[in-house]
Amino acid sequence: MPRKRARLLPPCHNSLTTALLMDTYQITMAYAYWKNGTHARPAAFDLLFRKNPFNGEFTVFAGLEECLRFVSNFRFTPADIAYVKNEPIAHSMDPRFFDYLARLDCSEMRVDAQLEGSVAFPRVPLMRVEGPLIVVQLVETTLLNLVNYASLVATNAARHRLVAGPGVQLLEFGLRRAQGPDGGVSASRYAYVGGFDATSNLEAGRQFGIPVKGTHAHSYVQAHVGWEDLEASESRDGEGNVNVLRLDHASGDPSLRCGDFKRLVLECASKLRDALCVPAGSGVGGDNGEALLPETLRWNATNESELAAFASYAVAFPRGFLALVDTYDVLKSGVPNFLAVALALKSCGYEPVGVRLDSGDLSYLSLKTRKVFEHAQAALGTRLAGGFGALQIVASNDIHEEVLHSLKQHGHAITAFGIGTNLVTCLRQPALGCVYKLVEIDGKPRIKLSEDVEKVTIPGRKHAYRLFLKKGEPVMDVMLGDDEPPPRAGERMLCRHPFISSKRAYVVPWRVEPLYHRAWDGAEGGVPAELDVGIDAARERCAAHIAMMREDHVRFVNPTPYKVSVSEKLHDFIHKLWLDEAPVGEIV
Amino acid sequence: MPRKRARLLPPCHNSLTTALLMDTYQITMAYAYWKNGTHARPAAFDLLFRKNPFNGEFTVFAGLEECLRFVSNFRFTPADIAYVKNEPIAHSMDPRFFDYLARLDCSEMRVDAQLEGSVAFPRVPLMRVEGPLIVVQLVETTLLNLVNYASLVATNAARHRLVAGPGVQLLEFGLRRAQGPDGGVSASRYAYVGGFDATSNLEAGRQFGIPVKGTHAHSYVQAHVGWEDLEASESRDGEGNVNVLRLDHASGDPSLRCGDFKRLVLECASKLRDALCVPAGSGVGGDNGEALLPETLRWNATNESELAAFASYAVAFPRGFLALVDTYDVLKSGVPNFLAVALALKSCGYEPVGVRLDSGDLSYLSLKTRKVFEHAQAALGTRLAGGFGALQIVASNDIHEEVLHSLKQHGHAITAFGIGTNLVTCLRQPALGCVYKLVEIDGKPRIKLSEDVEKVTIPGRKHAYRLFLKKGEPVMDVMLGDDEPPPRAGERMLCRHPFISSKRAYVVPWRVEPLYHRAWDGAEGGVPAELDVGIDAARERCAAHIAMMREDHVRFVNPTPYKVSVSEKLHDFIHKLWLDEAPVGEIV
Repeated sequence: MPRKRARLLPPCHNSLTTALLMDTYQITMAYAYWKNGTHARPAAFDLLFRKNPFNGEFTVFAGLEECLRFVSNFRFTPADIAYVKNEPIAHSMDPRFFDYLARLDCSEMRVDAQLEGSVAFPRVPLMRVEGPLIVVQLVETTLLNLVNYASLVATNAARHRLVAGPGVQLLEFGLRRAQGPDGGVSASRYAYVGGFDATSNLEAGRQFGIPVKGTHAHSYVQAHVGWEDLEASESRDGEGNVNVLRLDHASGDPSLRCGDFKRLVLECASKLRDALCVPAGSGVGGDNGEALLPETLRWNATNESELAAFASYAVAFPRGFLALVDTYDVLKSGVPNFLAVALALKSCGYEPVGVRLDSGDLSYLSLKTRKVFEHAQAALGTRLAGGFGALQIVASNDIHEEVLHSLKQHGHAITAFGIGTNLVTCLRQPALGCVYKLVEIDGKPRIKLSEDVEKVTIPGRKHAYRLFLKKGEPVMDVMLGDDEPPPRAGERMLCRHPFISSKRAYVVPWRVEPLYHRAWDGAEGGVPAELDVGIDAARERCAAHIAMMREDHVRFVNPTPYKVSVSEKLHDFIHKLWLDEAPVGEIV
Repeated sequence: MPRKRARLLPPCHNSLTTALLMDTYQITMAYAYWKNGTHARPAAFDLLFRKNPFNGEFTVFAGLEECLRFVSNFRFTPADIAYVKNEPIAHSMDPRFFDYLARLDCSEMRVDAQLEGSVAFPRVPLMRVEGPLIVVQLVETTLLNLVNYASLVATNAARHRLVAGPGVQLLEFGLRRAQGPDGGVSASRYAYVGGFDATSNLEAGRQFGIPVKGTHAHSYVQAHVGWEDLEASESRDGEGNVNVLRLDHASGDPSLRCGDFKRLVLECASKLRDALCVPAGSGVGGDNGEALLPETLRWNATNESELAAFASYAVAFPRGFLALVDTYDVLKSGVPNFLAVALALKSCGYEPVGVRLDSGDLSYLSLKTRKVFEHAQAALGTRLAGGFGALQIVASNDIHEEVLHSLKQHGHAITAFGIGTNLVTCLRQPALGCVYKLVEIDGKPRIKLSEDVEKVTIPGRKHAYRLFLKKGEPVMDVMLGDDEPPPRAGERMLCRHPFISSKRAYVVPWRVEPLYHRAWDGAEGGVPAELDVGIDAARERCAAHIAMMREDHVRFVNPTPYKVSVSEKLHDFIHKLWLDEAPVGEIV
């Protein structure tokens, strides 16, 4: 049977991701390497981060597919080269360098990587990039750019999912506040990988097949001055057909024609008023005899233009009626108006979807709204097919992780959250500090020293494994030198902290999983056939990985750090190299 | 003479900026408007922000050119429509709506806007968008997306420029940490508008003609294990020519051939050692007789592989030799090695550029480095053509506004700053809260109420003017109703706080400048010929506007708010509408 072929991926989603999407110093270094003849030496770089974002203890790795698209198509076009040639930095360059550059691609490069959507930890490289020095150096900035934000958003989304719990819908609404067009599109994509259910962003929906959601804005309500607008325009639709808020019955049965929807809505409002607006103190109201509902449902305070807006929206989307209820006042106007239209829809055979809250105290308002729904249900009794019990309450005002956490503690009746600015711009920490470090050149391991121990790189080409305990949870990631045999299930091994020699533990793993997978082999034709780089695989992997984690590693408050270690041999090697290279201070 | 024609602009720089780069609810609302026949009613939206970012008191408006590119090319392609048609949200839509959508463009829309690069203030709309309801509603999300981040970065950059002062170079280095590819490209663009001098991002350099800068990374130094690498490769360049670190004299005179550059560098190192490494206590050292230099310049501690790396980089860029000096130790290794290579370059007729510091205490290290340069200059005396006085010191480690402020206070000798993460992701505040509010429909002004006074919109179509005092500084922005005559220079007018009636002042402006300029008129063919939307005009405008501001409005610590007011007539109108629309609470 012929072996399945590796393949090249299509170009990056963003056309700005050209070979020139790099720091200038990649080109100047490339020239210097070429000039001094060291450009073709085999080199290995690690792409890693040093600290989990958001004060957490885990990170979701994302951006691999986009990196592989970039690598698949990496090549300097004649236009790229013409631009560089004309810049002052190139004025002293030997013109033959550009002929060389024009022939360059990633066909001699290899990438091993953790899989997209994996839970990953500090210091364990996300990607290992090997090949001729000049090539692996040139791709540095772009790979960092494509991994940094992707992983940050995926992690942020996963954290939101963890706090919100599995039972609610999470919708990404961030496009308008995102950092540029693909700040928006990438946010939608990686929020979905991290566990969101849908996006408001149509372009992201198209690019990645993410479900899209959305109803209407405050401006839709404001654009209705009253019923007369709809009547003044003689409710002709865009094709000039007279329309007068007419709605066919859901069954399609013409004998059940619902007729004038405005009249129907006004009738339903009146019906609800009769059923609900009982005098205060009658005991029909709140749990403790307080007459909440009579106050909150006084129809005389509802805004008629809001009612007209809801009615016209319901005629357009009888099967998708979800109304934004806070344009004027949620409990005095929005919710009663919604219920009137919802009841009218029900009488035409349609199921209304629910309401969206976009301001105020979401805990209080959602609980109150749910109570009104329940009360309406009880008061209208059997007249109501299906009832109002399944109505959704979507909330969407400045929500982030802490808000979700606090809503959970205070109680709420929200079924879906629309999350924008805080999710997509990663307000708590808008950048993940990924770095790309040379670890080996010409077979010689290189170490990057630093005053700060956290910043010391782990030298040489390494493998990494995740060790699992019997109950299925991962207990530790361990790195080993390229020449060491992998850890084996059931076999006791000493795992050491890479820098602090006193920290060490024996582990007998129940299961061992290699963290790296060949993701690119230029010589073999590109991305291995068996590597699934799709968004759905990444999303499923992310959920599965997080589900496997011990709860205390992923909890919101004071999570426990997950252990990252090195083999005994690698530990000794690091410390030898460290002593060899670090200059001895001299204090006089 | 024929009138100059308006024109359409080319497409957006980012190909993801399609007609579908919008929130789903724009399409659902568009359908509902079309369905109920209100889609063609004339509407006016204001695009504004409510609070200056970064605890400041000004904002730089940017993103207009990109908005106009979007508007110029706004049209649903057959592929766009095919995508939407297949989504669940569209299943109940009348198919004729899509024929209508396919014909839609911005030819009936008008945009008035403040000019790109202008200093702008809260509540005064940045853009006023007018036209058929359906069109002005559909472009909402994209305009917000294109203005929000652009203005945020331009403001951030302008703030960095203000703190750094005019004398230093500011370089944008953020691509690797930016929120996606065009988070990087846009950051470069708008940082330049805000007053940065150059970027490291080649793609941004190409797209916008921004100067690009860059030298080498730590990996370049690490990639050199020693001189032997260069010799082992027999220093053949990429074309196979033997190269052995040879350098021609800058004059091109073959009789001045510099020969073996390695030997020259080692000779220079020895010369410097003799001149500088005098015994401690000899008084040649620091200002107070302390023997700083002997300690800091002990060549026996310099890293030989670093020296080799510097030498090879200098041979590649003899006219652009700027060395990153902190790979091992700035004062013990990097600076002495740099000086040896710099001296060798000088003896070949080249001017070295300087050093880059990327870690440690930048104040201390830059001052020390400058002192070493001065001392080397003094010790080498007349042998040194031109001296080391003009050497640049570039600093680039995690720099942001506060760091610049503190460096200024502590003293430093830095001539250029490379600023990345904090600038491009806008760490202090990663989103600007721009909003897009309906202010008029069918000639009727609309107000958006809110519990929060700051969130109340100013209704109706308005004009805005900036009032200047005699000494040239702007003193107040004032908004007037569309039907009011503009303020006139020399004429006293009452300006009122829009919401707080007790706050008011008479102003006699010396000069009055209208803030809005026609930026798009679909009926006239697009962007008026006289509107310069280019990046250079925006950059100059930004610098000029900031220079005009009273110092206390733009200072770093506790800046004074700049006044934004409305005319007497508009004030009364707002308050009347407010009372009419706001429901009276009822507390029982």
